[in-house]
Amino acid sequence: MTTQTPNKADDVEEGTVLRPRFDAAGLVTCVTTDATNGDVLMVAHMNLEALQKTVASGEAWYFSRSRKALWRKGETSGHVQKVREIRIDCDQDAVWLRVEQTGGAACHTGRRSCFYRAAPLGQKGAAKLEFRDAEKTFDPDKVYPAKV
Amino acid sequence: MTTQTPNKADDVEEGTVLRPRFDAAGLVTCVTTDATNGDVLMVAHMNLEALQKTVASGEAWYFSRSRKALWRKGETSGHVQKVREIRIDCDQDAVWLRVEQTGGAACHTGRRSCFYRAAPLGQKGAAKLEFRDAEKTFDPDKVYPAKV
Repeated sequence: MTTQTPNKADDVEEGTVLRPRFDAAGLVTCVTTDATNGDVLMVAHMNLEALQKTVASGEAWYFSRSRKALWRKGETSGHVQKVREIRIDCDQDAVWLRVEQTGGAACHTGRRSCFYRAAPLGQKGAAKLEFRDAEKTFDPDKVYPAKV
Repeated sequence: MTTQTPNKADDVEEGTVLRPRFDAAGLVTCVTTDATNGDVLMVAHMNLEALQKTVASGEAWYFSRSRKALWRKGETSGHVQKVREIRIDCDQDAVWLRVEQTGGAACHTGRRSCFYRAAPLGQKGAAKLEFRDAEKTFDPDKVYPAKV
């Protein structure tokens, strides 16, 4: 290595330009937390267009891997996410959104957060789960079209 | 569909058994937050062994995709993560760890969080980043072996 050679790692880690490192599918991971208390609401993915729309609009857009489609959070349920801050991690392959979750629920099951079960510590091998903060704020059957 | 057929989605989403849905590489995404204030410290990955060791020991273990190796967080830096709670999301392909970050830094750059840059809202197209909460708590050159 010489000082003449640009250090790409430094550029990604210490630079001031957003240069997302998309995976082979063109996606980065996005973690979305509740700006009021730091709870993780959901983990999803973004392609370039979702990321650009989120930065530009201040509303959360994702890319649905199952539907293979751009997805404005809340477009069906009305529970949009107003973005308070967007952060990128050191190697620019993960995004953190701090949001105000309107309508009270980020999860398609009707719960505020997708993370409504805990695995108590100290278990060896197969682990049991306990429900935590798992109250439903809406009935998904009344909000989403019927599954076939 | 008949009522005789087990509904696997319900089992994954509403069950009380940890059944992680690993991707093709055998990994789930893990989001790690500071239990004291909810800040996202890092996003990493876990294979089955890392997840089981984390649940059993109460210390954070990950799987490094770049090194292709199981990785006890803090094994080089000494900055281990004491897990306060482990949660799993609705479709069991993402884990949330709430941790006490010992030594003050989760990021290999020496910062408390890997998310030390923000993309200000309202930008269209290529976006600029601003450093936030980016003070280094240690000098990585003194903690990690030299890169070649």
